[in-house]
Amino acid sequence: MKIVALAGGVGGAKLAHGLAMALPSADLTVVVNTGDDFTHLGLHICPDVDTVCYTLAGLANPVMGWGLAGESWNMLDSLKRLGGPSWFNMGDRDIATHLERTRRLELGEPLSGITRAFCRAWGVQPVVLPMSDDPVATWVQTVAGEELPFQEYFVHQGCEPQVTGFRFVGAEAARAAPGVVEAIHNADAIVICPSNPWVSIAPILSVAEIREEIWSRRKAGMKIVAVSPIIGGKALKGPAAKMFAELGIQPTALAVAEKYAGLLSGFVLDNVDADQAQAVRALGMAALATDSVMKSDDDRRRLAEITLAFLDVC
Amino acid sequence: MKIVALAGGVGGAKLAHGLAMALPSADLTVVVNTGDDFTHLGLHICPDVDTVCYTLAGLANPVMGWGLAGESWNMLDSLKRLGGPSWFNMGDRDIATHLERTRRLELGEPLSGITRAFCRAWGVQPVVLPMSDDPVATWVQTVAGEELPFQEYFVHQGCEPQVTGFRFVGAEAARAAPGVVEAIHNADAIVICPSNPWVSIAPILSVAEIREEIWSRRKAGMKIVAVSPIIGGKALKGPAAKMFAELGIQPTALAVAEKYAGLLSGFVLDNVDADQAQAVRALGMAALATDSVMKSDDDRRRLAEITLAFLDVC
Repeated sequence: MKIVALAGGVGGAKLAHGLAMALPSADLTVVVNTGDDFTHLGLHICPDVDTVCYTLAGLANPVMGWGLAGESWNMLDSLKRLGGPSWFNMGDRDIATHLERTRRLELGEPLSGITRAFCRAWGVQPVVLPMSDDPVATWVQTVAGEELPFQEYFVHQGCEPQVTGFRFVGAEAARAAPGVVEAIHNADAIVICPSNPWVSIAPILSVAEIREEIWSRRKAGMKIVAVSPIIGGKALKGPAAKMFAELGIQPTALAVAEKYAGLLSGFVLDNVDADQAQAVRALGMAALATDSVMKSDDDRRRLAEITLAFLDVC
Repeated sequence: MKIVALAGGVGGAKLAHGLAMALPSADLTVVVNTGDDFTHLGLHICPDVDTVCYTLAGLANPVMGWGLAGESWNMLDSLKRLGGPSWFNMGDRDIATHLERTRRLELGEPLSGITRAFCRAWGVQPVVLPMSDDPVATWVQTVAGEELPFQEYFVHQGCEPQVTGFRFVGAEAARAAPGVVEAIHNADAIVICPSNPWVSIAPILSVAEIREEIWSRRKAGMKIVAVSPIIGGKALKGPAAKMFAELGIQPTALAVAEKYAGLLSGFVLDNVDADQAQAVRALGMAALATDSVMKSDDDRRRLAEITLAFLDVC
């Protein structure tokens, strides 16, 4: 069964890793959000692509989820001494990724090609594709009337500002990265990983070629399953629940299913939210409750296997 | 006594440090070669300015002379794994200097202002001035007919190619950095540190405003003393002796004095070269033989004090 997974950062990376363990690597393509990408200290940083690649390579920091295991922070310490902008955490090993990516982008290499080369160097088996080689930038609209670049909102301001909406600048003009449309076209099913629907999955779907190919395949009967990033009314990581609430929607697994309604053939929610399964089914999709918190590699593999089995029956 | 020191990298930085210990800090200005500066991995790197500042701040790596003490190399290790250009050594702490400098240069700040801010952050007391805020690039002409950018010759090719000459591209158009001409104008004497005459001191003197102010002061009687970087026919560090030989000049302290002849009122050479003192004096300058190898901070201070005392009598 050929699977395309759509993923953002930490939670999405974990399920992608589970799928990589559950499937032959040739059968998995992970399409990753690049709406969070930004330039900082002259470096082109792709937080979600890096988190997915590091996780699939087994190099990810097991405590933080993002960044590298065994990381040191000497650059950042020294930058602080110089009074430089030290609000974005960059470990010393991680900086090599940003420096080399920036160098190759400036030589004209596309992000997708650089990601492929990095995956080879890191020993990542599945295909990892940035959603686009063209710039798509997530902007966060706030109640103060201000619009903030994503990392300014997310890291610098610690998700403090109250959000009113999102804009994916460049999405209309962006092409899907080479291989993305083909992978969706050839896929037997799509798994939407437990990533933030507003700022991790929505940017991927904002790229017209991706959105159109997914809908076209969906209409032709391809199955699409999403795994809820909201468990017990909370996001395990990140501002997804806070965003739902600020947009006037109670943050529940059901609300996630509603946001994807029409697109999904099935929805996986946590056992603690099992009472919402019936309401999810009323949206016209199958629903499966299971333990969806991924604390260990075994949890990741188990959730992936259950999701793949669910695809067969939904 | 107000002193301007002209310095390149490791050897020059050591004597500059000695002078900083021997003089009230308000009385010392160090003018540093920027001909070695280059862009690598998108970072603007100033090897000599950094070596001088790190040394004056007491932060320099005591073994290598360049780079920072207590340095880690995790970025470089990770860059190698990615197959990136890892021939230029950059420690993790050192990278903060390059990143923050590059960021500020791109905001339009001049190198001299950035260097001043860095010196404040590092606790460097004397004034450290890059020779120019304008780009001056040392190119090395080789017997193969090729012309190499300095770091390509120096680090990447390990000083292997046989040199035939040097070019300081941009020197004709470059202005002296703010404060350089004033410092020379107000100085009681100039100390040319034991740096490579061909690629550390010559680039400084290739900046017209600096050269003209120094010669004008010299003609008005200001004393200029150089300390030999060649000891016993060898350079303690770097390719100075090799360059003399390849240019058809026997690498001796005397050859250094000859290269600076006319400019100098005095020349300090090592005790092992004391037999050359007479020939140096025949060039029309005073000569002083002393122990000039700087292994410890005490050696630096002692050589600085002897050089300052020599200025009084030459």
